[in-house]
Amino acid sequence: MIQMTLIQIDNYGPWTVTPKPRNESDIQILQAELFADVQRQFAAKKGLVFFTRFDNMLAITNGINREDHFRIQRSIRNRFPITISMGVGTGETPYKAQKLATKALQKKGGAQSAERKETLAIDSLVDEKDSYIQIAHIDINGITETLTDNEPAFDTNFIVNKAQHYLMTKLIKKGALLFFIGGDNFMSPCNGLSPQELIDIIEKIKEEIGISHKAGIGRSNNAEDAAYLSDLGLETIREGNNNKIVHILEDETSKKII
Amino acid sequence: MIQMTLIQIDNYGPWTVTPKPRNESDIQILQAELFADVQRQFAAKKGLVFFTRFDNMLAITNGINREDHFRIQRSIRNRFPITISMGVGTGETPYKAQKLATKALQKKGGAQSAERKETLAIDSLVDEKDSYIQIAHIDINGITETLTDNEPAFDTNFIVNKAQHYLMTKLIKKGALLFFIGGDNFMSPCNGLSPQELIDIIEKIKEEIGISHKAGIGRSNNAEDAAYLSDLGLETIREGNNNKIVHILEDETSKKII
Amino acid sequence: MIQMTLIQIDNYGPWTVTPKPRNESDIQILQAELFADVQRQFAAKKGLVFFTRFDNMLAITNGINREDHFRIQRSIRNRFPITISMGVGTGETPYKAQKLATKALQKKGGAQSAERKETLAIDSLVDEKDSYIQIAHIDINGITETLTDNEPAFDTNFIVNKAQHYLMTKLIKKGALLFFIGGDNFMSPCNGLSPQELIDIIEKIKEEIGISHKAGIGRSNNAEDAAYLSDLGLETIREGNNNKIVHILEDETSKKII
Amino acid sequence: MIQMTLIQIDNYGPWTVTPKPRNESDIQILQAELFADVQRQFAAKKGLVFFTRFDNMLAITNGINREDHFRIQRSIRNRFPITISMGVGTGETPYKAQKLATKALQKKGGAQSAERKETLAIDSLVDEKDSYIQIAHIDINGITETLTDNEPAFDTNFIVNKAQHYLMTKLIKKGALLFFIGGDNFMSPCNGLSPQELIDIIEKIKEEIGISHKAGIGRSNNAEDAAYLSDLGLETIREGNNNKIVHILEDETSKKII
Repeated sequence: MIQMTLIQIDNYGPWTVTPKPRNESDIQILQAELFADVQRQFAAKKGLVFFTRFDNMLAITNGINREDHFRIQRSIRNRFPITISMGVGTGETPYKAQKLATKALQKKGGAQSAERKETLAIDSLVDEKDSYIQIAHIDINGITETLTDNEPAFDTNFIVNKAQHYLMTKLIKKGALLFFIGGDNFMSPCNGLSPQELIDIIEKIKEEIGISHKAGIGRSNNAEDAAYLSDLGLETIREGNNNKIVHILEDETSKKII
Repeated sequence: MIQMTLIQIDNYGPWTVTPKPRNESDIQILQAELFADVQRQFAAKKGLVFFTRFDNMLAITNGINREDHFRIQRSIRNRFPITISMGVGTGETPYKAQKLATKALQKKGGAQSAERKETLAIDSLVDEKDSYIQIAHIDINGITETLTDNEPAFDTNFIVNKAQHYLMTKLIKKGALLFFIGGDNFMSPCNGLSPQELIDIIEKIKEEIGISHKAGIGRSNNAEDAAYLSDLGLETIREGNNNKIVHILEDETSKKII
Repeated sequence: MIQMTLIQIDNYGPWTVTPKPRNESDIQILQAELFADVQRQFAAKKGLVFFTRFDNMLAITNGINREDHFRIQRSIRNRFPITISMGVGTGETPYKAQKLATKALQKKGGAQSAERKETLAIDSLVDEKDSYIQIAHIDINGITETLTDNEPAFDTNFIVNKAQHYLMTKLIKKGALLFFIGGDNFMSPCNGLSPQELIDIIEKIKEEIGISHKAGIGRSNNAEDAAYLSDLGLETIREGNNNKIVHILEDETSKKII
Repeated sequence: MIQMTLIQIDNYGPWTVTPKPRNESDIQILQAELFADVQRQFAAKKGLVFFTRFDNMLAITNGINREDHFRIQRSIRNRFPITISMGVGTGETPYKAQKLATKALQKKGGAQSAERKETLAIDSLVDEKDSYIQIAHIDINGITETLTDNEPAFDTNFIVNKAQHYLMTKLIKKGALLFFIGGDNFMSPCNGLSPQELIDIIEKIKEEIGISHKAGIGRSNNAEDAAYLSDLGLETIREGNNNKIVHILEDETSKKII
């Protein structure tokens, strides 16, 4: 079971234009620093946050309880001009977990409701014994040589965004999520996705748009270790210098559970 | 003429996995803080940075000279574990400007070259009298009501990413760039794009994928003011509560030049 | 028993001037952000860091174990241009605890040794059942009215520094430490100091230099709660609007232990 | 003429305890990040900020005008839960400059006034042609060997604080200010202080408390360069390995003016 948290800035849209539009660079800094900050706090408990839309962030939070979430909300309130609400859900797939997390929060009021503030809506938390996360770290083959060092920066960015769009479209159907994490890298929380299904998706995308990917898959009972194992898996393929598409690594904690 | 700067982390890929993969949350924090930091520094001179791929960022930098760029590189070297190189270019369209910026930097060595470090490659700088920037701030109509407050967070994210992909695909053909700036917001540096061309693109996307956008267009001789005017333009449409698709605002500095 | 950690930047002096002196503002930002960063990470585990000399920081770390310390070192290495070593010690008084923490680290090599890097030297850790912290939050009476709003800013700063110097001089003899925490506020980890001893010190300082203080004392098994109770104690005196010098609050965890 | 800016958090004391005391670690992070942030923004214009009391900071701001100050206030308002007011003054000595800066601000209302918010009170600005700054960078001789590597961390901190107190006491009488900048380092904006006067102060302190200092003095028309030259001056003494107490460096901009 994977546990996901939706982190939502309270009533943010109106704030950004009250009393008149705030300076765009300030908004960008605020959003980046808020992401960095909640990342650091969830990471202290082995969670992992994805920036998503910045005003709505999704995090893998297995092992992180109600008090931990509350402490993070308090800390943000004390240092930022905005506050955050959170919804927490769990599921056999990341898609289901974030869906329940979202629903729990939506029930408490809208994102632009002036009343809902610092809500912590927990649908469910994963028990330690059921905690299991599968993450795929996916990158684009040979991007530095073919794109970054040869094409205009925006064209490379366009290709990466295109890859993201195709990966998202196919993974969401399998209950897996996909997040851009910088460079040519994506992370996909993907409990329930089989390695063969991922290989099929990667091969299909190569066929459709000519972009080749590879992926390390990591499995653990916490996000930090699952992500790390997926990184190691990707490194193993890079070093192997072969045409392998997927490499799986798992730790002791993940061997018995799904 | 618009001036754009490509900001590239030196030899970053290898660094992230040496001696072994670095903790993913640390990488995410590092990237977000680097973006926030260069944003703050360029913003002090009325520039505007887009996070793009985080290891490669694009910025509008009209009015920012060689020494300013150099000082930012020095400041990053003193406070981060990585260094940055930059390329600067100018053009009648943002696409051309970033292309020249990229080329200038590529000539000095690859992104993963161990030799190239803290390079500042300037193809050209915009003269004050030719300085002109057009920015469109585009958002999705009614997203909070229809999506954020009703759909799972990742589905909303998926829709926003889809909109981004379609906008990018069409704008790049017109020499305009498109960057996601959080929430349901995009910024498009778009010198040379006519308001009617933008309306056509927005209407075509509505037809193709059923997502409606609106846009404020701002024009000035610096990125900060152009962005601000585009924000005001968008607010004007929101307040008008009509079906207007585009609203243009420009300041004194931008009236004579293109 | 209180547990203290000495956090020391490795080989920092030489780094600040290699190859030539680094820009002073960058050094100041680096130091402030390093402090904010380790603060945030220790705080996630209910610790509390004092900036001390910035290149050497002291923290109260009851309840924070070897792995926690290691994870913080790793995180700093991944995001800063410098690394940190740490020493950990425990004692009946804060003075003894920091002394053992320092000794443990000194044994591993000097602060400017090129060899010693990311050392984690643990003399001892406090057991949960022995964990006890007493903190005094001390401020200067009526500073806003008499000084901030009437005297030149530097004169007020001078008075605060003078108060700090006198408080430090007297507290250190009792095994208590004193840290400036901004404004007119000081925090004194002071296990073993009796309320009457603190009252005597405050009265003696008033006699000697004419500066009046008051103090809230908090007691708990972790730094966060002890500090919070000391804040509440101070608020109680402020609200009482009387001439009380010290107010003590303690929680359940601290009632049986010293 | 030196120009100094007093940066004061508006109505901060009450904020820290409303509705109840805020978590101490959050307060510490907020203060450190605010300092880092205004530092970065003033530094973009070659200014230099000293953390002073954190809720009241003093900065050397020659060359930084009304609009620059206003833009920094706006930027803080958009990203922090607090706002800042500023006073600006100029003088033949730093003491006079900060005194006028403070007075200008005090006239607009108290630090804890609920009405005064984001005030920018400018007594005067330095003309480019009169701009002149003298900074002394002072450190303690041989501190790593004698103290950091041998004494308990807090004892070293105590010695550094004692040195600060003695330096402040003597320098203020000469119209010079003194700020602790980390480690064993102090910076003294000291227009009008002669090198011999500084030597006398250093020798007197050695006599009184047995602590030896040395100092680099830098002179320029902006704070960044003056501070850099003072760093270089200190390095020159360190490398000379002699008993020199003061070394002066100045650039072209500072040769004619005082």
